[in-house]
Amino acid sequence: MTDKFLSISRRTRSTPFSNRVEAAGVKAYTVYNHMLLPTLFASLEADYWHLCEQVQVWDVSCERQVEITGADSERLVQLMTPRDVRRAVPGQGLYAPLCDERGYLLNDPILIKHSPRHWWVSIADSDIILWAKGLANGFGLEVEICEPDIWPLAVQGPRAEQLVSRVFGDGVSAIRFFHSSMLEFQGKKMMVARSGYSKQGGFEIYLNQADLAEPLWDELFRQGEDLNVRAGGPNLIERIESGLLSYGNDMTAANNPFECGLDAYIDIDADIESISLPALREIAGKHVNQLVGLVFDQAMVFDQFQIESQHRIVGEIRSHVWSPRYQKHLAMAMMKRDYLSAQPTLSIDGKVATIVDLPFNFDAIQ
Amino acid sequence: MTDKFLSISRRTRSTPFSNRVEAAGVKAYTVYNHMLLPTLFASLEADYWHLCEQVQVWDVSCERQVEITGADSERLVQLMTPRDVRRAVPGQGLYAPLCDERGYLLNDPILIKHSPRHWWVSIADSDIILWAKGLANGFGLEVEICEPDIWPLAVQGPRAEQLVSRVFGDGVSAIRFFHSSMLEFQGKKMMVARSGYSKQGGFEIYLNQADLAEPLWDELFRQGEDLNVRAGGPNLIERIESGLLSYGNDMTAANNPFECGLDAYIDIDADIESISLPALREIAGKHVNQLVGLVFDQAMVFDQFQIESQHRIVGEIRSHVWSPRYQKHLAMAMMKRDYLSAQPTLSIDGKVATIVDLPFNFDAIQ
Repeated sequence: MTDKFLSISRRTRSTPFSNRVEAAGVKAYTVYNHMLLPTLFASLEADYWHLCEQVQVWDVSCERQVEITGADSERLVQLMTPRDVRRAVPGQGLYAPLCDERGYLLNDPILIKHSPRHWWVSIADSDIILWAKGLANGFGLEVEICEPDIWPLAVQGPRAEQLVSRVFGDGVSAIRFFHSSMLEFQGKKMMVARSGYSKQGGFEIYLNQADLAEPLWDELFRQGEDLNVRAGGPNLIERIESGLLSYGNDMTAANNPFECGLDAYIDIDADIESISLPALREIAGKHVNQLVGLVFDQAMVFDQFQIESQHRIVGEIRSHVWSPRYQKHLAMAMMKRDYLSAQPTLSIDGKVATIVDLPFNFDAIQ
Repeated sequence: MTDKFLSISRRTRSTPFSNRVEAAGVKAYTVYNHMLLPTLFASLEADYWHLCEQVQVWDVSCERQVEITGADSERLVQLMTPRDVRRAVPGQGLYAPLCDERGYLLNDPILIKHSPRHWWVSIADSDIILWAKGLANGFGLEVEICEPDIWPLAVQGPRAEQLVSRVFGDGVSAIRFFHSSMLEFQGKKMMVARSGYSKQGGFEIYLNQADLAEPLWDELFRQGEDLNVRAGGPNLIERIESGLLSYGNDMTAANNPFECGLDAYIDIDADIESISLPALREIAGKHVNQLVGLVFDQAMVFDQFQIESQHRIVGEIRSHVWSPRYQKHLAMAMMKRDYLSAQPTLSIDGKVATIVDLPFNFDAIQ
């Protein structure tokens, strides 16, 4: 829904790329980690097709880093997540749910281990820096915690590798998925990772010098002119088709990671000091809800997001969009598991949806 | 600045009043504590005059509460603030900066003590619940921490008392500033406080039952028809004229409370267990910056917010607005104290500003 304006102030922080984003004709933003995130340029659908067929540059500065340094860094990071952080390899991203002592989900960041004493927690939309500071203070840990001056710029789409290689050189193609290299732009080394919030392929450039923001943006557009590069942003159609979850939308601090299908990222039997693991061991297999996909044959307008069946609330729509590619209306819904076990379909306003596992498997969807 | 749309999703949470706010013709929102905050109805200036002369109803559900209960509640609240919380009186709000172990400002909430074992921290825009949870876990405190289902609705303006009295009865007029009473609406008791984010007088109703949101809104508009009641929201002109600070705008986690003029809310010599107090005792009197007011005779458009003098950055504009009442452009700026001590004025783009203390004293301003 985008028919209301956004009041922009210093509190809804701009980024070093904001002037270029404005010049590129941004129509809408959302606010993410207290920062502007561009969401709309031409139209939701035009932006979608362009992303899937060409290449886009996204100002995702709002992917803030929580930087943890010092002797107890690894201990603090491990306290925060039920995933065994001994898995982390320097230069490689590790997706890890963060959960509290009751097993509830506080964020789902990418952990980046620069060294045992230097971590980045690359966060979704909640102030994890405050949780980290509270834990560090309470446990008396020897760490420094800050939000460093890092502004990620994503290059996404099937032509992303070609474009990023033109700007950062041959080292780009050797970067494997979720890995990174330190590559140079105008004499400054910065982290370039094969990652991003789409399934169209691409990179994230972790800009570490504000006055290089506009030169980097301009160089990507100069080098990408024949590739039809455009400004873009995370696209609702693409992310739902791709089954990419959004913290705050599909899952919240009222959910545990099992409900969200994040079981694979919990090292349930690991001998690690994690705040949430005792609770998660209790919850495992007993969770009440499950995030699933719903597929409707026609475009839907939902009067309400709660899903009722026989006068009982059996679930809730969390995100949804019309897919122009598949000509289906796709939703992610948090449903009662006891309802799911009994029903392969559900009906909303007389429209029937097939209930499917996430991510959507379009080969299996008629 | 409001020429871009806001992409609204489940993550930018709606409130139980949202349908009524939409029906009232809201034009713009901001996002505050991950929730929609209406900011514009007719125009900034029309909303301003109406607020100062009539009465408005504001959906300030985004003033979220962090509820802390249990045996160690008061200890946790005291750890979070350098203000002596023994000052708190049940039913009375206590403005209190929250600061970390280095003395930096993490929020500036109103503390509400329901009982020694039951507190609300009524927060500005940062996820203080995460800090509280981290501290509680690290210190091993016996507390429960949650975000309760409370949606404040403000009634602001010179006719607010008349309107709120019509809906909540005679008990309203006896409520003193920053105090509250439990008053009844349709059989449900809820907290009504004489408070709000304007200096025009008014109340905040802490709605505690979602399905009463629309009945309450409708009753206020029915009873307020002859008072010319309208929907509104925090107004930039009014708040700057009134010198009301905004966390995230005028002060951030990069500032200490002395820089923001919050000295009166720090009990520097108190024998209390507060995380920030040791650091604040070190900083006191030695802080580098000071938040001040700037008064220009003409309307200003700032190309940049940094303020330079003789090739040195001496400060930064944090908030600013044209005052139609005083025919001055008013700004709040964080300035280097060594510059302030030498200069009574400054010049931006050849326009001279008088530097004044906050809050603005318009009797003294020509």
